[in-house]
Amino acid sequence: MTVGTTVDKRLARGERSRRVILDHAMDIASVEGLESLSVRRLAAELDLSKSGVFAHFGSKEELQLATVRAAVEVFVTHVVKPARRAPAGLRRVWALADSWLDYAAKPIFRGGCFFLSAVAEFDARPGRVHDAVAAARRDWLRLYEAAVAEAIALGEIVADIDPADLAFELDSIARVAGQDALLFSDAAPYARARRIISARLTVVATAAAPAIPSAPRAP
Amino acid sequence: MTVGTTVDKRLARGERSRRVILDHAMDIASVEGLESLSVRRLAAELDLSKSGVFAHFGSKEELQLATVRAAVEVFVTHVVKPARRAPAGLRRVWALADSWLDYAAKPIFRGGCFFLSAVAEFDARPGRVHDAVAAARRDWLRLYEAAVAEAIALGEIVADIDPADLAFELDSIARVAGQDALLFSDAAPYARARRIISARLTVVATAAAPAIPSAPRAP
Repeated sequence: MTVGTTVDKRLARGERSRRVILDHAMDIASVEGLESLSVRRLAAELDLSKSGVFAHFGSKEELQLATVRAAVEVFVTHVVKPARRAPAGLRRVWALADSWLDYAAKPIFRGGCFFLSAVAEFDARPGRVHDAVAAARRDWLRLYEAAVAEAIALGEIVADIDPADLAFELDSIARVAGQDALLFSDAAPYARARRIISARLTVVATAAAPAIPSAPRAP
Repeated sequence: MTVGTTVDKRLARGERSRRVILDHAMDIASVEGLESLSVRRLAAELDLSKSGVFAHFGSKEELQLATVRAAVEVFVTHVVKPARRAPAGLRRVWALADSWLDYAAKPIFRGGCFFLSAVAEFDARPGRVHDAVAAARRDWLRLYEAAVAEAIALGEIVADIDPADLAFELDSIARVAGQDALLFSDAAPYARARRIISARLTVVATAAAPAIPSAPRAP
């Protein structure tokens, strides 16, 4: 029993230190990029031993891949799960856009959405980190498309809309707004994105669709 | 006269070497980011002396700023000037989107649109490079907005459209398509962006507006 408890404690401590390392790694990557991560730097900035950090992540690439996986979890917690609480249909499509914009505006990472940075950094480089980032992007687009398709199936969005096109369109507006808000240190792009997405959804909604929260037009 | 000719030749040679350095710098920055630029690396990769490169750009920051300025020139040549050849109004708004997508798809830089990378890299960092990138982005959005406002003034786009919102919307769709095309090594996002932008412009066009090239809907 004592041996088991000791092992449990050690595992729990290991999990906590892994968590601390990954939280810091996501923060660095959101500002400076995944290429700025290194075992040496994380150890120095977190006052841990290099061998301790190395025990969790055997190489820079493993560290980058673990950071991408951790960022997917954060994304699911802050964007996907809140949106799933909205009823299926038009309101869930709106909730995906709305949660994404909330997440981008929150001070979760210093450098805004982790994936905006990671996609721009790895889009033109081959390798496992690129593939992990591309898979995360593809999963998100598919989830968004499925929400639109469900709204069409429920008769809340008109049937002549291509679900992948509409999902791409709404997501693009939110993404660029998130990036502009950061670039200009200005929250106005979030309001602009909500206004445009809300107007777009109003146009494609059927007469039977429930109301979605609408944003006022610009003066 | 001889002295003048010698000076002219030296200036011309200096301008050529500056051009070669900046072309390579833009290419590196589009793939790996502006932070990957250094006088040492450029000298090594171009087989030039470090002091020769240093004579053109006195610091890493100066090199980064000169690279941003050079990228603005490339952008004007490939996007702004071709679009200006289209008649003012709806067709010029379409031409801006169309030229941007052409430019993103061309192998001008190995890493796709220089500014997609630069914005993501510098959006969360203060400093002169950030400010130069933000200014370039702001200029582009204003130019796009002015083209939409002109189309409204000419009676080709309905008057209840906010020019800045529509410009932002169309540009966002093109930008994210450019990034996805690179990330997935797939040209389909370009076609999707043209389809969405063309449909969007068809909706906001007045009855008096000229036709714009239209893309077929997805099957």
